Amino acid sequence: MAVYTDVTDEELESFVADYDIGDVLSCKGIAEGVENSNFLLVTDRGQYILTLYEKRVHEADLPFFLGLLEHLAERGIACPQPIPGRDGHALRRLAGRPAVIVTFLSGMWPRRIVPRHCAALGRAMARLHLAGRDFPLHRPNALGPEAWRPLFERCLAGAPGAGSDMLSPDLKDGVARELDVLETAWPADLPSGVIHADLFPDNVFFHHEALTGLIDFYFACNDFLAYDLAICLNAWCFEPDGAFNVTKARLLIRDYGAERPLEPAEIAALPILARGSAMRFLLTRLYDWLNHPEGAFVRPKDPMEYWRKLRFHQRVEGPGAYGLTS
Amino acid sequence: MAVYTDVTDEELESFVADYDIGDVLSCKGIAEGVENSNFLLVTDRGQYILTLYEKRVHEADLPFFLGLLEHLAERGIACPQPIPGRDGHALRRLAGRPAVIVTFLSGMWPRRIVPRHCAALGRAMARLHLAGRDFPLHRPNALGPEAWRPLFERCLAGAPGAGSDMLSPDLKDGVARELDVLETAWPADLPSGVIHADLFPDNVFFHHEALTGLIDFYFACNDFLAYDLAICLNAWCFEPDGAFNVTKARLLIRDYGAERPLEPAEIAALPILARGSAMRFLLTRLYDWLNHPEGAFVRPKDPMEYWRKLRFHQRVEGPGAYGLTS
Repeated sequence: MAVYTDVTDEELESFVADYDIGDVLSCKGIAEGVENSNFLLVTDRGQYILTLYEKRVHEADLPFFLGLLEHLAERGIACPQPIPGRDGHALRRLAGRPAVIVTFLSGMWPRRIVPRHCAALGRAMARLHLAGRDFPLHRPNALGPEAWRPLFERCLAGAPGAGSDMLSPDLKDGVARELDVLETAWPADLPSGVIHADLFPDNVFFHHEALTGLIDFYFACNDFLAYDLAICLNAWCFEPDGAFNVTKARLLIRDYGAERPLEPAEIAALPILARGSAMRFLLTRLYDWLNHPEGAFVRPKDPMEYWRKLRFHQRVEGPGAYGLTS
Repeated sequence: MAVYTDVTDEELESFVADYDIGDVLSCKGIAEGVENSNFLLVTDRGQYILTLYEKRVHEADLPFFLGLLEHLAERGIACPQPIPGRDGHALRRLAGRPAVIVTFLSGMWPRRIVPRHCAALGRAMARLHLAGRDFPLHRPNALGPEAWRPLFERCLAGAPGAGSDMLSPDLKDGVARELDVLETAWPADLPSGVIHADLFPDNVFFHHEALTGLIDFYFACNDFLAYDLAICLNAWCFEPDGAFNVTKARLLIRDYGAERPLEPAEIAALPILARGSAMRFLLTRLYDWLNHPEGAFVRPKDPMEYWRKLRFHQRVEGPGAYGLTS
């Protein structure tokens, strides 16, 4: 779940009075998301999402994230829309945190992924990339390749009371060797633009298998567009038992390409991008697992899931492993 | 938070198809409540609450709880209403758990209690007691006086890896002595009926200081009516710094009495009932604290808060301490 900051009824009423969204009927913390505190706000006009930004989101990045949501919506991408207060500003403060109210997006994220979900995801992601092309703000990927080795070293240095001895030599040596490979083989140049960078199933809503919207743009940044695809190969195309589902991968890539055809260099780079993406989630999960605060509400995700995914991509012989017929 | 059982989109759609509540637009886990899994369900007809009953609620008790909600609503008490499926049955199964959909109650629970909240609470509680008089089902209080000593003994026996040595001799001896007192001095007979038995602030909704409804009837049972009042003296009338706010207590009892006048025996029994109520929450919190499962989403509540409240009631010289002028 994620409610790190509670909001009193009085604080909320005075906060909402600065908007033109009606009278608050209810406000309930949502047990989803891990970075921020989210509430489902019901007024006599409808439903809204209230987000309080917690420490892991840098305030300086908020204009990028909120501006991007507006930019994308103007170009037909279904995503939450920041609602401005009466003074025209969407970014405000509540309970000592930066806070926004955004529109409510209907749909549910798919608990059991079927191939049709992956096809719809591919198409939506390509449209997102196209819509982001003329977004004027720029945000480097804070969790890109140059961040991985320092993050790994912070994991090795260990958390208080935990320590790096918890990590097996296989894992430590394997990650160190893979970082060497990634630093050497990472592409120098590929088509770039704004990517979502966290399109996991819980950030993609569907209604009866139709994709209804994308949420949680708080890792969005400028990077290789095909890296977003590589993140989704990891997040959507492995079965719960660890098997890679090539049908899902093929549909994901095929429907992406129907909206934005991939260049040969992007296709060739998919295996290394998938390895890099697996490394990124392995390391952030490992760090969170080692630094999981006692008494926190959030259950840390399993880092080893991404170690197993990384090892799959290390063994592939080329992009054909993802169902591509060249 | 409380989402112990997740529900897949497919399970949910097939579950909701048995109701006449429209098409599911969204279903989000709610980060409130500790006993059951609760979801805010949005359909094209409105909002509903979906509850999955977890292990601590006995299935055999569900007809009592659900029947009570219907009984109370027919008598004008604002509380969630179980919604029957097309076959007329409200109690169904989802994701392997007993499950119901109930009506959505607007309002927010008060984070900062002011005296007017206590007055409104007293009035609503008395109306609840009056409305419950002719409820035909009966459920003994599973957490009444005869349950306290066995529960304390289970705390002393300790949890795996924890053990009773965590408990100070002051606390252990103090609880044992208090149990002796309670077992001797507990009233033999007082006006009885259906009580809520868990009317904490997070179970009472307000809208602009008007009480809009009561929720979470899963401890409701037959017991002394004044015991419900004693539970609220503990849950509503202490300040965050531990001080007892006699103004809140006086308004709570006065407005209760305006709807259902208290008998002299009930007034005389308030101090011992308040001690018993403090003991009940001290022991269940202590038990939860000692048996808190690792990795659980729920942060255990502080048992010692109720130890301090118990000590307050031990020192009072009579019901006058609660603002009553006899």
